[in-house]
Amino acid sequence: MIKRTPVIDTIYNHSSVRHYRDEPISPDLVRTIVAAGQQAATSSNLQLYSAIAVSDPASRKHLAELCGDQEHIRQAPVFIAWCADLSRLHRICREQGHQIDAEYMENFLVAAVDTALLMQNACLAAESLGLGTCFIGGIRNRPAQVIKALDLPKLTFAVSGMTLGYPDSAPVNRPRLETEAILHWERYDPKDEAKLLDLYDASMRATGIYQGRQIETDEDSDQYGWREHSARRVKKTSRTDLRVVLEHQGFGLK
Amino acid sequence: MIKRTPVIDTIYNHSSVRHYRDEPISPDLVRTIVAAGQQAATSSNLQLYSAIAVSDPASRKHLAELCGDQEHIRQAPVFIAWCADLSRLHRICREQGHQIDAEYMENFLVAAVDTALLMQNACLAAESLGLGTCFIGGIRNRPAQVIKALDLPKLTFAVSGMTLGYPDSAPVNRPRLETEAILHWERYDPKDEAKLLDLYDASMRATGIYQGRQIETDEDSDQYGWREHSARRVKKTSRTDLRVVLEHQGFGLK
Repeated sequence: MIKRTPVIDTIYNHSSVRHYRDEPISPDLVRTIVAAGQQAATSSNLQLYSAIAVSDPASRKHLAELCGDQEHIRQAPVFIAWCADLSRLHRICREQGHQIDAEYMENFLVAAVDTALLMQNACLAAESLGLGTCFIGGIRNRPAQVIKALDLPKLTFAVSGMTLGYPDSAPVNRPRLETEAILHWERYDPKDEAKLLDLYDASMRATGIYQGRQIETDEDSDQYGWREHSARRVKKTSRTDLRVVLEHQGFGLK
Repeated sequence: MIKRTPVIDTIYNHSSVRHYRDEPISPDLVRTIVAAGQQAATSSNLQLYSAIAVSDPASRKHLAELCGDQEHIRQAPVFIAWCADLSRLHRICREQGHQIDAEYMENFLVAAVDTALLMQNACLAAESLGLGTCFIGGIRNRPAQVIKALDLPKLTFAVSGMTLGYPDSAPVNRPRLETEAILHWERYDPKDEAKLLDLYDASMRATGIYQGRQIETDEDSDQYGWREHSARRVKKTSRTDLRVVLEHQGFGLK
């Protein structure tokens, strides 16, 4: 049923890597990966992003601490901070004698989407070259300190981090939701959702990923699946200062 | 210098397609593309997205009008609305007896980034199968009407549209900024930026894309390049109701 191409094979082989070999990545290889990222579509060709590649061990150690103390950030030879960046256009506007309008939510959103498209292209390019990556949402844990650590100017913001290196662990492919659970035809209509989520709970339980979690609960272990796990995950947002930091960075969010 | 893999070749062959052949796309092919999209990384495996595939001609005509009256939305056999979706987890939480926290900017941002990663995977999968796509930011032109047209429930929002079909035009590859203009080492440092932007202005002028624009200006036509073009583009945001619509959809943006 699923048609295969080398691209689709690489897409299906994706697995986040959290263990890396002690082997450096050349600046040329980083450039190749970022350049591939740049080929993604970008709204009005504005290219509202920047990448900061960090290889200095002390800096990676500091970033690991800021990003939820993740060991693999210390371990991976390169950490890339993917930034929504309106500051380049701000500099250009100043020089060309124009004003930039960065007062609205739209301005931040379009830059964040541009950045994520770049990130995903870069991730696939890296994987096709035998490298491993892991996106680091933890870069938003302490955004003000990240801004300081990376010297980010106003109108830039680190949307996500990414570790990059040669994998030192076997890939772990997690199944995703049944496609029909996220794909609607003509209009949004989740009518078969419960049945599809039952299937997904079963396939996620079968991976064994939730073993041990069962001990923490009073429930029948057979009932702990993706739904219960995810529902617990979103009970409380920890990153509550994003808006304040974005506004401090000059993004209007009207 | 640039290493090549079949994936990187597909990435470099990307070109937004705005002319399509009158040839349908099967539901199975749409499923294949969306399923490939789902293999992208997703924060905490929450999969905060949905795709609405629209093929009904009257609906596509209506969406074309809502998205800036773009002819190729009428023409392409399929339009996909890519939605940030916290509503699925909201339904799950209700059923599991938990609360979902959707009060913060972080909650919307993580869903929007998940959605964009999915979009880019889907785009590359489609291109590897010989199809063409064009992302439609114009879906945010009249977001309240789009919500109505697609029956989007609270806690969903159409981040981007995408046309999908068989290309009926030759690909037009636009150069991107010199990689060093967007790639920084260790810290953000745009020190060579002016020189790199000069190079890009020259390469964009060489594509001929700005011809005709020169007539609109008093300036020396040799001076009209990406910088001037982009600076004019960001003088005024047209999508000023995004925040109000997001809040109406239940996204807290604290």
